[in-house]
Amino acid sequence: MEVAQILCMNKGGGELSYTQNSSLQQKIISDSMPITEKAVEALISMDATSASPPQSIAIADLGCSSGRNALLLISDTINLVYAKCKRLGYPLPEVSVFLNDLFNNDFNSIFGSLPDFHRRLKDTNSDEVGRCFISGIPGSFYGRLFPKHSLNFVHSSSSLHWLSKVPEGLEGEDKIRMNKGKVYISRTSPPSVLLAYAAQFRNDFSRFISSRSEEMVSGGHMVLSFMGRKSMDPTAAGTAHQWELLAEALTTLVSQGLVDAEKIESFNAPFYAPCMEEVRMEIEKEGSFNIDQFEDFDVEWDDSTEGTNSGLKSPLRGQRVAKTIRAVVETMLESHFGFGGEIMDVLFERYGAIIEDYLSWNTIKSTNLVISFVKK
Amino acid sequence: MEVAQILCMNKGGGELSYTQNSSLQQKIISDSMPITEKAVEALISMDATSASPPQSIAIADLGCSSGRNALLLISDTINLVYAKCKRLGYPLPEVSVFLNDLFNNDFNSIFGSLPDFHRRLKDTNSDEVGRCFISGIPGSFYGRLFPKHSLNFVHSSSSLHWLSKVPEGLEGEDKIRMNKGKVYISRTSPPSVLLAYAAQFRNDFSRFISSRSEEMVSGGHMVLSFMGRKSMDPTAAGTAHQWELLAEALTTLVSQGLVDAEKIESFNAPFYAPCMEEVRMEIEKEGSFNIDQFEDFDVEWDDSTEGTNSGLKSPLRGQRVAKTIRAVVETMLESHFGFGGEIMDVLFERYGAIIEDYLSWNTIKSTNLVISFVKK
Repeated sequence: MEVAQILCMNKGGGELSYTQNSSLQQKIISDSMPITEKAVEALISMDATSASPPQSIAIADLGCSSGRNALLLISDTINLVYAKCKRLGYPLPEVSVFLNDLFNNDFNSIFGSLPDFHRRLKDTNSDEVGRCFISGIPGSFYGRLFPKHSLNFVHSSSSLHWLSKVPEGLEGEDKIRMNKGKVYISRTSPPSVLLAYAAQFRNDFSRFISSRSEEMVSGGHMVLSFMGRKSMDPTAAGTAHQWELLAEALTTLVSQGLVDAEKIESFNAPFYAPCMEEVRMEIEKEGSFNIDQFEDFDVEWDDSTEGTNSGLKSPLRGQRVAKTIRAVVETMLESHFGFGGEIMDVLFERYGAIIEDYLSWNTIKSTNLVISFVKK
Repeated sequence: MEVAQILCMNKGGGELSYTQNSSLQQKIISDSMPITEKAVEALISMDATSASPPQSIAIADLGCSSGRNALLLISDTINLVYAKCKRLGYPLPEVSVFLNDLFNNDFNSIFGSLPDFHRRLKDTNSDEVGRCFISGIPGSFYGRLFPKHSLNFVHSSSSLHWLSKVPEGLEGEDKIRMNKGKVYISRTSPPSVLLAYAAQFRNDFSRFISSRSEEMVSGGHMVLSFMGRKSMDPTAAGTAHQWELLAEALTTLVSQGLVDAEKIESFNAPFYAPCMEEVRMEIEKEGSFNIDQFEDFDVEWDDSTEGTNSGLKSPLRGQRVAKTIRAVVETMLESHFGFGGEIMDVLFERYGAIIEDYLSWNTIKSTNLVISFVKK
């Protein structure tokens, strides 16, 4: 099954929605902001050297999702553009914004919030705003989405760790036991599993880069932020807790007779957290981008101490982390396992308890890579 | 209330949906096709004279709606582009398609149907297709929607007869009795009503034209198709049956105690069917378009004899016409009158019976204007 058909954040605004459970992704956007800021500065300044203020700027956000994060990156970016232009005494450019996500993303809810978005943009910029055209571009970013040489700035946050599909070597009748009891690369996974995942990442990422290379103008900037790892070794401790613990929760459902063991054996997440060297290798192979800046930082999945003075962790932090992950993977699990409703609740109740237990002895954090590129 | 918030075709795929009740609008698209065809031919040929085949073409469909008609015009247009390029031996251009409608249009359903659309496009063109990028642009076409000089071809069908708002002179406490018992221009309407409607049309249409003028490239083509009238006199017989009969149906609800008479008096449709002279005057005043071709044709609202051999009219033709209109105006009526469900059913049952009765002695048809423009 193509990921394009099954990857979809939980819709609506309810307790289990992505909107209500995406503060982690929001934090990643804000932690990556210094690099975004530098890229936007450079984008505007580039035109300063050529002594012609940019009349129009085309910005794409790839994997925008829906809910409160969908327009966050864009509003931050546009505010940066306006601020920089005002500092330089430039007239404000026309800004075209392309919001991309898969075909089944909830674009209606984004579009419904646009009148509010435009009002806020005016308020933040004391009514000194330029024209801003916002559009939705449905489709996979692992292929062409835009006409040639049409984009000045590309951004993507918390999206590129999703592969276009489960690595080929792991699917099919004969292969389903290859990664037994696991749903992603694990210490017990055989080397063939590691190789299959790494190959799928290379394939996908190179298609991403070559597509953007055709779409971006020379001198254009791109900031990509996604889950990765610091170690070269994909099985190193702490690179994929969320999948390890999810596999554990799924396994307990087998003993309860709620899920067929074979269903777990045939499930592998279409996810990959690369290290910087893997990213760099694909960039160099493709050849049309320079890496301008690179950073990795850790993000704690349990942010329950934030906003409290006591520093005490809430006893429900495991359930909270579980909900963050549920909002992202539920549609995918539903599609593979064929269950929803009560069994899904049991699964994530169990998952939350396992995370809670794990958190008493560890922290759950993931590494986020942020990379800024310039198109040659 | 801005029309942008209350004009919305009935969603979904049920019995009362726009999808199930839009064969009239589909017929208009196909009846306008010869003019569209000529415009597309000219668009491609224009580049032939400059001896450079177009590498990319940007097409906008303004007021695309949703359902089966949403992609019809676009697929016809792209097929024409491909056919013409193949005849001339040109490489196929990259085509960017911008589907526009108001913020509350069901873009999700259009986007969900895109994988099928791309498959059909390939089938129709024996797999010889170029890249085709489809996006959704929410917002009112009575203002700017696109960057400067970015569009080669603009099309709009069955949309421009909707005004941006109810004419100003007709709203407000003092004015509500001005067009008593009517919901649009009628023989009994005082001249101030006619003037208010005509002024609102001029205002809206000139904003439409000046916005497109900024967005289109020089030599670009535009085909507009919308309800209009042949007579200079907006009260001439047969120019607005649908509103006359709707007012009649609404009035019967008053006698049944289902609707407050004042509610009808304060309702005026944000609609205007102009004559060609009014269109021409705005075009000449704005000055950046030439009218290349112009046509008017009648469309019968009752197409019940189509597809049958007997030629006999179905006894349910009144209800069928009522459903066609309901799919378009229901959201607007709901917003003004505050009723839905059963009362809406009673209203359209009554409306259907009135139309049925009218059809025994008359035909219900509307005039459609199709105009092809070239940007100077």
